[in-house]
Amino acid sequence: MLADLGAEIIKVEMPNTGDHARFFGPYQDNESTYFTLLNRDKKSMSINLKSKKGVALITELAEHCDVLVENFRPGVMQKLGLDYASIQEVRPDIIYASISGFGSDSPMADWPAFDLIIQALSGLMHLTGQRDGPATAAGESLADVCTGMYAAWGITAALFDRERTGEGREIEVSMFDSMFSMQLTGLSQRLYSEKEPQRVGNRHPITYPVDSFPTQDGLIVMVVTSNPIFRRLTEAMDKPELANDPRFKDNEVRNTYEEQLRSVISEWTVSATSEEILTALQKAEVPSAPVWNLGQAVESAHQQARNLVESGQHKKLGRIPLVPQPVRFSGGGASHDQQVPMLGEHTTQVLVELLGKSEEEIAVLSREEVI
Amino acid sequence: MLADLGAEIIKVEMPNTGDHARFFGPYQDNESTYFTLLNRDKKSMSINLKSKKGVALITELAEHCDVLVENFRPGVMQKLGLDYASIQEVRPDIIYASISGFGSDSPMADWPAFDLIIQALSGLMHLTGQRDGPATAAGESLADVCTGMYAAWGITAALFDRERTGEGREIEVSMFDSMFSMQLTGLSQRLYSEKEPQRVGNRHPITYPVDSFPTQDGLIVMVVTSNPIFRRLTEAMDKPELANDPRFKDNEVRNTYEEQLRSVISEWTVSATSEEILTALQKAEVPSAPVWNLGQAVESAHQQARNLVESGQHKKLGRIPLVPQPVRFSGGGASHDQQVPMLGEHTTQVLVELLGKSEEEIAVLSREEVI
Repeated sequence: MLADLGAEIIKVEMPNTGDHARFFGPYQDNESTYFTLLNRDKKSMSINLKSKKGVALITELAEHCDVLVENFRPGVMQKLGLDYASIQEVRPDIIYASISGFGSDSPMADWPAFDLIIQALSGLMHLTGQRDGPATAAGESLADVCTGMYAAWGITAALFDRERTGEGREIEVSMFDSMFSMQLTGLSQRLYSEKEPQRVGNRHPITYPVDSFPTQDGLIVMVVTSNPIFRRLTEAMDKPELANDPRFKDNEVRNTYEEQLRSVISEWTVSATSEEILTALQKAEVPSAPVWNLGQAVESAHQQARNLVESGQHKKLGRIPLVPQPVRFSGGGASHDQQVPMLGEHTTQVLVELLGKSEEEIAVLSREEVI
Repeated sequence: MLADLGAEIIKVEMPNTGDHARFFGPYQDNESTYFTLLNRDKKSMSINLKSKKGVALITELAEHCDVLVENFRPGVMQKLGLDYASIQEVRPDIIYASISGFGSDSPMADWPAFDLIIQALSGLMHLTGQRDGPATAAGESLADVCTGMYAAWGITAALFDRERTGEGREIEVSMFDSMFSMQLTGLSQRLYSEKEPQRVGNRHPITYPVDSFPTQDGLIVMVVTSNPIFRRLTEAMDKPELANDPRFKDNEVRNTYEEQLRSVISEWTVSATSEEILTALQKAEVPSAPVWNLGQAVESAHQQARNLVESGQHKKLGRIPLVPQPVRFSGGGASHDQQVPMLGEHTTQVLVELLGKSEEEIAVLSREEVI
């Protein structure tokens, strides 16, 4: 996200192996496309953190950086002598961001923090799924992605603050905390009553009919949030009498008679194709949409108009599709092709340009397997 | 999010009715707890945008503000004479953020943009759910929440930039674009091959066994991402021979023989309680966790240690639970009780303190139903 806005990002990886994400499938020509999408326009520098000289290089780098981001388990950076206080000695106004599963002061600080584990613990998985089905993980690594989004925001806020105060800051972002705090709907139920919110399939927990319905050839969603919209729905269905049916006259009774209402709406939706049903709903101004697969979203006229997929450059794969951050800034927009780095591609460049190392010094670092 | 960091936020609402979210359940004493969680520490000002004087008040307010955020459908602010160019006339360095479903230049710009509609169109719903079940919505309004997160980040980035350049900026955040760009795992499959990614239940699309398993009394997840971890799993199960079974020797064959592997692991997990299984897994250093409901997350020692739920003040409800943004800043932390505003609670205060209106002027605005 920050690279998309023009920040110079130096990703530090272990020599030879690199970021684990380089080994996450799917692959194209042995290159992880997952890693590729995640690392657009970062520089890659290989530094061996198991060597003292490698650790010293990190400190030297930090002196020249505005922000340091790390996501080791709590305590590791301290053991390495790379904790906030140590980095502050060389760069007093550093913004030091730690991303971890649970934060440093949690009783669960030592738990492993994979996306699925956070989804499971946060309560989101328990709330996702069909009513008669199991707790269900979201179809994307949301805990990973959202924690990164919060971290990018926190870092940017600290950078803003530093412009005014001249002072740096330590930031801690936890995956559990991130996923927890996003669940406003669930928490608005759970924190204000003793009733545990439950899985409700695709319907809204409070308002009905906000739900998905099967059609002859697919699945559509509709969002009926008020009595006037419900009346228009019944007219689209050619059953205007339903709007006066005492079982359906307001949201409260529509919830009580949800099963009956779902069945009468489904009877109508399965009688025609998604396109026919959606045309009728849209004519009646009932908010509605098809359920698209990712390919349909990619191929949509919307995606093409908004350039949600851009083209970048990869040393080995050549021209590749990349997905930039989604916020549009006036006067913004990268004017260059984004690049995805090979492991250690920029090690020498950064050592020369940022740290002023000589060719001989670099040769020594290389021989001693520091880089 | 910005209020949590100390920003003064003035929420503008229609007189008498206010933000629709004030009518979203659940309620406590007729107050929406959903609205309550979303509006901590905002000021509420009621201004009638259907009156010319009301619109003029917005322009007058903008002159005193760093940021304007609006989320009407594209075109509405322009009709009101409140578009970016107009606001720039009174406040040249304004940061003007528009949040909408699809952005202003999309062929879908006029589509209604409710959370469920965006989840359906973005592809996330199609990717979420059990393999033999329907497309499934996430158990939280993620499109609403994540779009807000991106907007907070974009605004903060523009504020940082303004500190250096003195210039404002127009920002556009679309719900569709936000949800689309977050799906890195799905897109890393879809953009680099013609194969449409499909729902895979709770398992990881590439790596196995990363999945949920039933126990005697619940559901647990485990994350086995490598052969050494798989070996430790087989030892915890007391079936070390499985690690040498040619069907399970590496991730590729574990995917081929997924059903057999799931069945042999399930056989073990259902034989004991979640606690017993997790104890065995944790002893063997196999990343794993229980599936908690939201109440368990709320009541966890982790939540208590991290203060993910704080206490605030509501004019009518008294002391209430609130959920702050999750990023922890050193030297940060609100030193005051957060308040949740009643409709129009701060109208007079803002008119007096920010715009310097007299008592008489305010009486006229009130009589003319402008505020």
